[in-house]
Amino acid sequence: MMPRLAHYLPVLEWGRAYGSTALMNDLVAAGIVTIMLIPQSLAYAMLAGLPPEVGLYASILPILAYALFGTSRSLAVGPVAVISLMTLTAASSVASPGSAEFVAAALVLALLSGLFLLLMGVLKLGFLANLLSHPVVSGFITASGIIIATSQLKAIFGISASGEAMPELVETLIANLGQTNPATLIIGVLSTAFLFWVRKGLKPLLIKAGLQPRPADLMAKAGPIAAVAAATLAVVLLDLEERGVAIVGDIPQSLPPLTMPLFDAGLWQQLAIPALLLSIIGFVESVSVAQTLAAKKRQRIDPDQELIGLGAANVAASFSGGYPVTGGFARSVVNFDAGAETPAAGAFTAVGIAIAALFLTPLLYSLPIATLAATIIVAVLSLVDLRTPLTIWRYSRADFAAMATTIVVTLLMGVEPGVIAGVGLSLALYLWRSSRPHAAIVGRVPETGHFRNVKRHKVITDPRILTIRVDESLTYLNARWLEEFVLEAVADHPDVKHLVLMSSAVNSIDASALESLEAINHRLCDAGIKLHLSEVKGPVMDRLERSFFLEELTGQVFLSQDEAFAALLLAGEDMPPQREDVWLARGLI
Amino acid sequence: MMPRLAHYLPVLEWGRAYGSTALMNDLVAAGIVTIMLIPQSLAYAMLAGLPPEVGLYASILPILAYALFGTSRSLAVGPVAVISLMTLTAASSVASPGSAEFVAAALVLALLSGLFLLLMGVLKLGFLANLLSHPVVSGFITASGIIIATSQLKAIFGISASGEAMPELVETLIANLGQTNPATLIIGVLSTAFLFWVRKGLKPLLIKAGLQPRPADLMAKAGPIAAVAAATLAVVLLDLEERGVAIVGDIPQSLPPLTMPLFDAGLWQQLAIPALLLSIIGFVESVSVAQTLAAKKRQRIDPDQELIGLGAANVAASFSGGYPVTGGFARSVVNFDAGAETPAAGAFTAVGIAIAALFLTPLLYSLPIATLAATIIVAVLSLVDLRTPLTIWRYSRADFAAMATTIVVTLLMGVEPGVIAGVGLSLALYLWRSSRPHAAIVGRVPETGHFRNVKRHKVITDPRILTIRVDESLTYLNARWLEEFVLEAVADHPDVKHLVLMSSAVNSIDASALESLEAINHRLCDAGIKLHLSEVKGPVMDRLERSFFLEELTGQVFLSQDEAFAALLLAGEDMPPQREDVWLARGLI
Repeated sequence: MMPRLAHYLPVLEWGRAYGSTALMNDLVAAGIVTIMLIPQSLAYAMLAGLPPEVGLYASILPILAYALFGTSRSLAVGPVAVISLMTLTAASSVASPGSAEFVAAALVLALLSGLFLLLMGVLKLGFLANLLSHPVVSGFITASGIIIATSQLKAIFGISASGEAMPELVETLIANLGQTNPATLIIGVLSTAFLFWVRKGLKPLLIKAGLQPRPADLMAKAGPIAAVAAATLAVVLLDLEERGVAIVGDIPQSLPPLTMPLFDAGLWQQLAIPALLLSIIGFVESVSVAQTLAAKKRQRIDPDQELIGLGAANVAASFSGGYPVTGGFARSVVNFDAGAETPAAGAFTAVGIAIAALFLTPLLYSLPIATLAATIIVAVLSLVDLRTPLTIWRYSRADFAAMATTIVVTLLMGVEPGVIAGVGLSLALYLWRSSRPHAAIVGRVPETGHFRNVKRHKVITDPRILTIRVDESLTYLNARWLEEFVLEAVADHPDVKHLVLMSSAVNSIDASALESLEAINHRLCDAGIKLHLSEVKGPVMDRLERSFFLEELTGQVFLSQDEAFAALLLAGEDMPPQREDVWLARGLI
Repeated sequence: MMPRLAHYLPVLEWGRAYGSTALMNDLVAAGIVTIMLIPQSLAYAMLAGLPPEVGLYASILPILAYALFGTSRSLAVGPVAVISLMTLTAASSVASPGSAEFVAAALVLALLSGLFLLLMGVLKLGFLANLLSHPVVSGFITASGIIIATSQLKAIFGISASGEAMPELVETLIANLGQTNPATLIIGVLSTAFLFWVRKGLKPLLIKAGLQPRPADLMAKAGPIAAVAAATLAVVLLDLEERGVAIVGDIPQSLPPLTMPLFDAGLWQQLAIPALLLSIIGFVESVSVAQTLAAKKRQRIDPDQELIGLGAANVAASFSGGYPVTGGFARSVVNFDAGAETPAAGAFTAVGIAIAALFLTPLLYSLPIATLAATIIVAVLSLVDLRTPLTIWRYSRADFAAMATTIVVTLLMGVEPGVIAGVGLSLALYLWRSSRPHAAIVGRVPETGHFRNVKRHKVITDPRILTIRVDESLTYLNARWLEEFVLEAVADHPDVKHLVLMSSAVNSIDASALESLEAINHRLCDAGIKLHLSEVKGPVMDRLERSFFLEELTGQVFLSQDEAFAALLLAGEDMPPQREDVWLARGLI
């Protein structure tokens, strides 16, 4: 019993060995992540079209839930940019941003994606995340980054704009450009410039000033909090609220409320697909960060248990006034670099955010939204990756096609169509390739027992004997291709009396392929041709013996291709060798 | 130009060599198929919820279109049972059977499925039909046969019943059983019994009477027309219409009308998915019949051109008052056995049906619908195959699961959910298996250069060197698995300094797998482990050279695994051999 429980509750394992060194390290990491997370959680909640406090709430109980159930020791769970954009898109389809229904829809999204993740975890369905190929994920993140950055320009200019994809966004931005608020624009541009400089220029400066690279890096990561403080101060001192600068305003001073997601079948149905996409995208991103960080310390994570950890975090979000969360890339790296040793660092972060929610929210009253937008822009532009499309173009045209499709469809039509198009195209290309495996007509290399492609080597063949080698397992995807390939080959060789299927690369034969083999056997029989097999692997042979195929087979099963060729060459057309003879000759019966 | 045109218009090829022998044979076959098709076309149209004449119209122009564009010399195109059921289900979702809107929906279905088929043919997308594995198609046909036979019981009893799946059908049948019409029931039961006897008992009797087996078989196939004649006569002579026996009634005496499918975006959208399913199911069934018959004469069919032939037939149906058609199994076999030599036999059948539509419809006025239902029941029960599930169960549990799911979902929920569930489950199982290929940690067999699985053989290993052999191409589906497998293996072997990926079975590496290899390389590097490759195939190496991977690789690429093991054993931990040294040693530089 115990090992099973510890498997589902990893905290039982690392918790037992928890000591004071780990405690210190975790506390330091939690402090740094908390400072980073306060502005981010507000900003991402507003990106998702939600009140800022929802971001704080999504950073308390969900982190605790992950700390109990997750397997990564460094992953920092909470609101992230891409998932926030997907939440905005999905919830916008059922309610308008800012409304109470919209907040309720975000809770349902969190609950549904949590349930999907838990279900996939319990049923070990994590492999479904494989459907998101690297080019698709990379293209999707890049396109999402561009959409998010563009959408935040509205806050920088102090105007309104809307739309889930670029055409509408750009159109509404341009249409409203005349209403730009100068004070807002100044704050927005200064914040953005400062944050870019912090990212690129501060660290070298700090190192020059004598700091070690690691603390310098961590201090640079805390830049946003300085921008937030300076901008808030500027608003208060210069009374910029009077000049029309939009500010965060009142945030309730409280711990997360207990919320109950709506149990409305219609709403659940409308949000099911978006929640599924959102949970899979979140899982893929989170697992890849967690794996990268775990490997640095030769630790492991368990992807199926990660599904449960992230699922629990999202369910927790749905019952505590939050919205969908996952493991974030930037914060996790900071957490790791700051020395986090166990998931307890996450728990301490949750406590830090809870304290902020209780006591610090009045300080955020005058924080300009333009500064939050600037932190988002700077964060997401680092996600935009224009080098990968080029390297993928050089490496594989098919992969490039999947990536380009994902980027273009996401930019033009939005996040959900983008993911679906990318996954669909990748899968179609994969199935297309799987449906026509490599196969060759082979002949014997002179004076050897080797058989090679007749197109590439000078080999010995016989007009009465045709040998086909298939370099792939036989499945339902290529079964029909096999029928066509064999029948065409036979039609091209009118003198053939014996067809040998050389099966050295066939690791399995499914029921559809077996049916095709039976059809080939019957059709060849009708045409007066015997079908033989050679070099059938042990497990494949075991399985064939559970079918009627071997009884119906007009020809024989030869242990080696060499043997097959020799026996069929010797055999007169009227006197085919008996199957038993061959086995007898090998001393097998 | 000429060969291209002949490719798309196969009639140009066989038409040139057409002679009087072929003409005679085709005329005889056409005569027999026409006799068989008259009652069938009426019956299937009524099964589809359409007026009987629609069945005749669907058997004229569509057959001519297929004769021009199709590649099979024996395929008999026209209304078939399963497609009629799918038409009923799809059109019922937008209109009620019997209404003018319903007939219009059937035309749109024919047009859409025709366009899908043409599109797949032009884009060479026939491989999409591979998604329908044999167990799914077989299960679907069996379940459809049960549903169709059950639905026809209403006509046998002279009561009403409705429903697209078994629960509703059975419920409404039982509820209305009290309204059974005795005269109808007598006709229905007698017709069914007679047709079963014709199918099983007539042929032996005819042979006993001195007929050759083939003509005896063909005469037995004409049994339905005898039943139709006898039942019609009975209705007229006994004045059964007075007793409430439902009859076919007035059928307009005319050639097919010119119809224009509705161009209504909303309707098209609602019918698009059903039309797609219907066209793929029809294509799969038709191609398998055509291939079986072609192979008997060592002829070929071209599946992509078949898509165009069937597409043209369905478009023709939509413009001539018909409904979706495809190649039928039973009629095609009769056509073949009766000696049809070219698609001209189809054209003559079309003429035969046109004559029937013009002159014979008054004779069908008193034909009882119960007799048509009997012909359907007898025809579809031969589609119900209860032996295949057993053989598939013995052969493969995964395939059985796909088949059982298809049967159960089709019976309980209807044809569309059934196909979708079967295809979805097959694909999920396939992707699941593809996502975890076979791999092994290998060691050297003593005193040889062979490397084998450490779990199965006594082999030599070294704690500093870990060799993993993956028995599959590296794709996005198994890329994440590869990362996990390698990292777990490394975590299990704490002394490892060198990891070798033995790539003898790797036929390709896609961009996602390349990304995973890069991630593995970096993570191993962080953990102080070098990554090496061995036995990389030529084309894979060519492609890797177009990426940055080989530059970043911490270890080397060895030509053989034997060489890799020897070099890494010799190399001290501090003095790894240079890559150039190895190539130099092989005399390559």
